[in-house]
Amino acid sequence: MADSRFYDNRGPFSLAQVESLTGALAMAGTSLVEVQDVAPLDRADGHHASYCDGVKFQPALRASRAGAVFVSEALAKFAPPGCVALVCSQPALAFAKLATALYPKVGYFWPAGREPLRLIADSVRVGADTVVAPGAFLGENVEIGSGCIIGSCAVIGRGVRIGRGTSIGAHASISHALVGDRCIVHAGARIGQDGFGFVGTTEGHYKIPQLGRVIIQDDVEIGANVTIDRGALADTIIGEGTKIDNLVQIGHNTRIGRRCIIVSQVGISGSCDIGDFVVIGGQTGVADHVNIGQGAYVAAKSGVSRSLEGGKVYGGFPARPIEQWRREVGVVSRLAKGKQGKNERSGSQD
Amino acid sequence: MADSRFYDNRGPFSLAQVESLTGALAMAGTSLVEVQDVAPLDRADGHHASYCDGVKFQPALRASRAGAVFVSEALAKFAPPGCVALVCSQPALAFAKLATALYPKVGYFWPAGREPLRLIADSVRVGADTVVAPGAFLGENVEIGSGCIIGSCAVIGRGVRIGRGTSIGAHASISHALVGDRCIVHAGARIGQDGFGFVGTTEGHYKIPQLGRVIIQDDVEIGANVTIDRGALADTIIGEGTKIDNLVQIGHNTRIGRRCIIVSQVGISGSCDIGDFVVIGGQTGVADHVNIGQGAYVAAKSGVSRSLEGGKVYGGFPARPIEQWRREVGVVSRLAKGKQGKNERSGSQD
Amino acid sequence: MADSRFYDNRGPFSLAQVESLTGALAMAGTSLVEVQDVAPLDRADGHHASYCDGVKFQPALRASRAGAVFVSEALAKFAPPGCVALVCSQPALAFAKLATALYPKVGYFWPAGREPLRLIADSVRVGADTVVAPGAFLGENVEIGSGCIIGSCAVIGRGVRIGRGTSIGAHASISHALVGDRCIVHAGARIGQDGFGFVGTTEGHYKIPQLGRVIIQDDVEIGANVTIDRGALADTIIGEGTKIDNLVQIGHNTRIGRRCIIVSQVGISGSCDIGDFVVIGGQTGVADHVNIGQGAYVAAKSGVSRSLEGGKVYGGFPARPIEQWRREVGVVSRLAKGKQGKNERSGSQD
Repeated sequence: MADSRFYDNRGPFSLAQVESLTGALAMAGTSLVEVQDVAPLDRADGHHASYCDGVKFQPALRASRAGAVFVSEALAKFAPPGCVALVCSQPALAFAKLATALYPKVGYFWPAGREPLRLIADSVRVGADTVVAPGAFLGENVEIGSGCIIGSCAVIGRGVRIGRGTSIGAHASISHALVGDRCIVHAGARIGQDGFGFVGTTEGHYKIPQLGRVIIQDDVEIGANVTIDRGALADTIIGEGTKIDNLVQIGHNTRIGRRCIIVSQVGISGSCDIGDFVVIGGQTGVADHVNIGQGAYVAAKSGVSRSLEGGKVYGGFPARPIEQWRREVGVVSRLAKGKQGKNERSGSQD
Repeated sequence: MADSRFYDNRGPFSLAQVESLTGALAMAGTSLVEVQDVAPLDRADGHHASYCDGVKFQPALRASRAGAVFVSEALAKFAPPGCVALVCSQPALAFAKLATALYPKVGYFWPAGREPLRLIADSVRVGADTVVAPGAFLGENVEIGSGCIIGSCAVIGRGVRIGRGTSIGAHASISHALVGDRCIVHAGARIGQDGFGFVGTTEGHYKIPQLGRVIIQDDVEIGANVTIDRGALADTIIGEGTKIDNLVQIGHNTRIGRRCIIVSQVGISGSCDIGDFVVIGGQTGVADHVNIGQGAYVAAKSGVSRSLEGGKVYGGFPARPIEQWRREVGVVSRLAKGKQGKNERSGSQD
Repeated sequence: MADSRFYDNRGPFSLAQVESLTGALAMAGTSLVEVQDVAPLDRADGHHASYCDGVKFQPALRASRAGAVFVSEALAKFAPPGCVALVCSQPALAFAKLATALYPKVGYFWPAGREPLRLIADSVRVGADTVVAPGAFLGENVEIGSGCIIGSCAVIGRGVRIGRGTSIGAHASISHALVGDRCIVHAGARIGQDGFGFVGTTEGHYKIPQLGRVIIQDDVEIGANVTIDRGALADTIIGEGTKIDNLVQIGHNTRIGRRCIIVSQVGISGSCDIGDFVVIGGQTGVADHVNIGQGAYVAAKSGVSRSLEGGKVYGGFPARPIEQWRREVGVVSRLAKGKQGKNERSGSQD
């Protein structure tokens, strides 16, 4: 599943190797001989291993076409016919271990074993009228369209594609990403590093390999020192015409729609789905797996802990319709003043 | 109006060209033959085009000395004698389009057409005892005083002036800026990139060219990974002796007074005016166009949505006098506890 | 006290020089002839100067083994026998002035007077199988273990030690730091710059020299554009196995325990003590000198203004037990709704 422009698959592994790497036990009676790759339940095919992370994924497990699936003993019976149940106590951990073995040393700007000897690799392709400033690093097979500007000390990792007319600021770093036309990426933006994903174990937090990409569509602007993590198994996507201010964080797998405005210091966690034309005010935080509907407006400094319908204005923490939040602020203010004098207090109760 | 050390003016444009570029219609009976530059209403002269962005700017329009002004049909009659009314439906958009034509490809570290061939331009002037580390980029006509330190991989754009005894950290990027004496700019600080300004259109967010500067006065300290945007038409100013902690965001046109303390992760929006000796606690946000008076102290994590008088202590969101905020926190806490038992509840009502 | 791998001591100074540099007056009858270094009261020895910053430090003063101590006239009598009282009106300022004289021009990536001529110093030692990408800067006496990856344009200051199997991202800067094995430092992280410490004076904020280090233990992950300041006199410490997400700020002298999870955009002030296994949700702020006990879980966007016991779940600002915070949110919401209609309101009072 991982894009071979960015990732080198060290598979396949035999079932016996998978058992040995992960400690899982393959249920008897299978015809699968080897695992080529990893994928989520809904996108896996017969050569992929997937995992079922608890009872709420039971329907996805039943419907999956995965060749093998890491699963707890209790849920193993729901593996569909032809899918090998790899029974283990921590399916997410086993999956992460297999992914680590398939893709060791991911997350860097060049392929393992082909370390860069100079700033600009021989295989780089750059369009007409594109300026690459001194000090920039362009990794293997980078492709940049015409009319672009690549700032001094920018670092563009292996396989990254950049469209036409796009500016990449000084010191920006971009890896595992496809960037559209007419984008502006400001200085110090970080695009494509690992998402923040771990499985808890008794020996510490086990890192889940991040095997997705970042897709930046056309006409996107990304502010200085912004961080956009690449997806774990899916992609992180920034929609066409969306403008992102400085110091914003966008977590892995999150999808942001078209023509959104994301103001400075906003933090959007992983696996969110933000609709088109959404405006998010400065310093707002959005919890993971939250959806914000098209055209919603979230006031500055809000905390969005649940999904929000589109077309409305929200504020506060937890974020709620803004009139409600304002009413609450007013009620509390009056109550606190009421405490100061008896008259004022009884007055407010009439 | 734009500082020619940082910007190359591609004008002048004839009135007919302006009409063609922007879709505006010049009112009859004018003697103006060409537009050399753009400026706000209060700073424009007879060679400048300006714009009137709604009825609240009518007094400024009447008093302006601009040679031409983009204005809605309804307000066109308030253009003063000798000022050409350029009638259009979206004056800010027309102005942005003209500014884009006058200053194409702004916002970069070198002049268009004079792309850098090496890290340090021939025209750079560096004072005695100043150390420039390997890997630093110094653009055309950069001037650095004596006794400075320029860190490895720092990127200093064309025309930037830096005073004496100033340290610029590794990976800092500075453009469109004048920096004073004895300043410390820490690693990864971003000074002078575009402000975050757009005009909404049916085809998306149209970028407003950012043609101002950043002025850093003497003895300022700027933390790691801080972002300070340059002004749109005015300047962003950091006053003498002000200390800014890591990861702070300062928006375009904002002016910060002398000897302020701005703690980590504060976000100050655009066009704010912060007085001298102001202290702003960590993670506080300040909305755009807000003034904070001299000597005000804003507690951490506040949200300043309206202007605050000087000399007082504030907290909460919206920020209010801190005793009031504390009282409100106490009232709510007691109310919530009161809900738990009937006795306690009736007790609190006596 | 300062680690000579990172700091060059310009002392010793005679008592007369100390008086002249700081304006303090040494009490009569002392045998101390010179001051070699500075240290806090509890770690100073007979060759060190320390300072007593107010009456609450009187017990520490009485117990100190410092050779000299800056102290107010009122507290001078508590200086123990053999310790020279250096009487002055602002002991912290005098101490900062002496520290500045002992360690001028600290905080940079190379020793003063030995400015780097090339990206990689001759004295650098790099282990087997370690890859240093083009454009990286490695200062004097840097030591890097085997199997590491140093990204393009990374800047590693003099004397820094990095263990085995550690990855340093592109554009990361590291100074005054010891980094363990198997760590991952993502692009643009800033480790080891000055903490944010000043003494107020009538001439402005006087910078307190930051003479400590950053210690990153094994298996730590540090996100993109994170900032971790080095200690003032002590060290900033990140415990083994702790994972830090993007854009987090960690202040000077703060100690974070083992296997913590610190989510994006968290800000932890200086001199905090965070126990093992603590989880801090995104955008939370922690005030200075706060302790958070082992295993505490602090929800996103909280404001921790006082120390928190371990093993519990907290939320809100000020952070409190999360059930209490939720109850308060509910109470306010119901109150505000009650204001809308008489029936609903009286209903809620029954």
